[in-house]
Amino acid sequence: MSGEFERIKKIAEALGPRAAGLLDDCAVLPTGDGQLVVSTDSSVEGVHFRFDWLRHQEVGWRAAAAALSDLAAEGATPAAVLAAVVVPASASDDELVALMVGVGAAAAAVDALVVGGDLSRGPAWMTTITVLGWTKHAVSRASARTGDGLWVTGVLGGSRAALEAWKRGGEPAPDARTAFAHPHPRIDAGRRLAAAGAHAMLDLSDGLGGDVRHLSEASAVSIEVDLDAVPVASACLDEARRLGISPQQFAAEGGEDFELLAAMPSEFDADSAMAFQRASGIAITRVGTIAAGSGVHTAIAGRPLALEGFDHFR
Amino acid sequence: MSGEFERIKKIAEALGPRAAGLLDDCAVLPTGDGQLVVSTDSSVEGVHFRFDWLRHQEVGWRAAAAALSDLAAEGATPAAVLAAVVVPASASDDELVALMVGVGAAAAAVDALVVGGDLSRGPAWMTTITVLGWTKHAVSRASARTGDGLWVTGVLGGSRAALEAWKRGGEPAPDARTAFAHPHPRIDAGRRLAAAGAHAMLDLSDGLGGDVRHLSEASAVSIEVDLDAVPVASACLDEARRLGISPQQFAAEGGEDFELLAAMPSEFDADSAMAFQRASGIAITRVGTIAAGSGVHTAIAGRPLALEGFDHFR
Repeated sequence: MSGEFERIKKIAEALGPRAAGLLDDCAVLPTGDGQLVVSTDSSVEGVHFRFDWLRHQEVGWRAAAAALSDLAAEGATPAAVLAAVVVPASASDDELVALMVGVGAAAAAVDALVVGGDLSRGPAWMTTITVLGWTKHAVSRASARTGDGLWVTGVLGGSRAALEAWKRGGEPAPDARTAFAHPHPRIDAGRRLAAAGAHAMLDLSDGLGGDVRHLSEASAVSIEVDLDAVPVASACLDEARRLGISPQQFAAEGGEDFELLAAMPSEFDADSAMAFQRASGIAITRVGTIAAGSGVHTAIAGRPLALEGFDHFR
Repeated sequence: MSGEFERIKKIAEALGPRAAGLLDDCAVLPTGDGQLVVSTDSSVEGVHFRFDWLRHQEVGWRAAAAALSDLAAEGATPAAVLAAVVVPASASDDELVALMVGVGAAAAAVDALVVGGDLSRGPAWMTTITVLGWTKHAVSRASARTGDGLWVTGVLGGSRAALEAWKRGGEPAPDARTAFAHPHPRIDAGRRLAAAGAHAMLDLSDGLGGDVRHLSEASAVSIEVDLDAVPVASACLDEARRLGISPQQFAAEGGEDFELLAAMPSEFDADSAMAFQRASGIAITRVGTIAAGSGVHTAIAGRPLALEGFDHFR
């Protein structure tokens, strides 16, 4: 079995001109007065979440937030959410309603409506959330340029810290649990970075290790990442120590933080970053540089370190 | 556990103003120069299909055709398809590619592109297909009027005939198998009926028995159905006899024919039907009348008969 990206490449090859942009997180369709941005995203019980970790409402919130995060990375404004939910025969109406209340709350938090969906029976809980948004000009992942700075919003690794705690039978620190259960799609931040001239943007679902590679491949550029600069969620410190790796590596190899990774033109400097933080209330940190060539080159304390990505599909 | 419609009602109640139109098959969003129509639809292995019945390519075609059928009922023109696929760990790349080739073929058959999707691991095969289309004015299910004629396209019951054959361990008749495995969404027919002034339209996924009830409730009208007039797929004759019911009842209680059910103004007469058939190549048959009041009143050979719907969720 191949990884997700290899499989999508095989599908794109087989479909040829009947398919377009399958490797992007979002589809972008032209409309009369701008662009419609659409994304669809599945969460599967036992793969993406477990009910001994999360309540039903949190599962719904997280699924919707993860899908909305793809719109944030395009600089788009969410308008509508559709939720296709597969429900095991043993589930109660209350559980289903709670899950959908979570979906509705995540949509409402970014001023989007839940406009439709589908209910089916199946062997496990599963949600497929489709989100629609509008923008004048979507930010691609394929347009990073030599000389751009590489920036991330927020702090990384909180979601992984929760996962590692659960996996070893522990309880996550409150901050880590919130990062996993209640992520906030960076809609406002995405719009601001797009307006500030972002050349390329992704949301961090596959971890910095995975998504910097996606950015490098899609844009056909080389990327230098300074791991020392990576902003680390405080909950990482303890979990990284248990695994015997640096908090920076722990954070950069953790998935599903749903922060934004942006290639900003060189004019976006420390002053621009301060202005962004004041306006959005969200931290932004420079973690690298786009250069000519190919491949990702990561260093910590002056020594190279190859980062792993985060792939649910493995 | 409640049925699908009751559950959706509970969800709509819980979400209140954060949700809109959850009981419709499609969401309709205004755009600059018309309306965007969106629908999402899950198919689950063991619930909606089985691989001892269908090949992977047929599963993909059927899933996409079922979703596109919702656009047909709005009179919309499909533009784009997204496919979220959940794949068991045991599946091969070839099986996944074959399924997606089926999705691509169904999209291509109605001039739509596959523009995106998602791949996840999970306990069974599952596809959630989201379709997007455009129209000037979507046809609702809530606007049937007193005096309208009730019409259906094509012939009904083929899909159920295949299901019944498989369930009793037999092989379906070729026509029945095709109806189940390779349904054609009635896109062209839907556009023509919309242009001819359709007051309300649905696609027949829950069977005539289920969907006439949906139409009656959504439009707050009474509907009289003349079962003798229902156009029956020839494969129904044998299967209906085995069950000891009339072919008309068998066909009207079978789901997933993906034909259109339309409330047409009284000016749409036999001549209009002939013109529609000549232009579209698809049969259209009058099976009832919209009246004031509420409820569905079905008769066969002059005697009343209450029809069952078809609900995967039960």
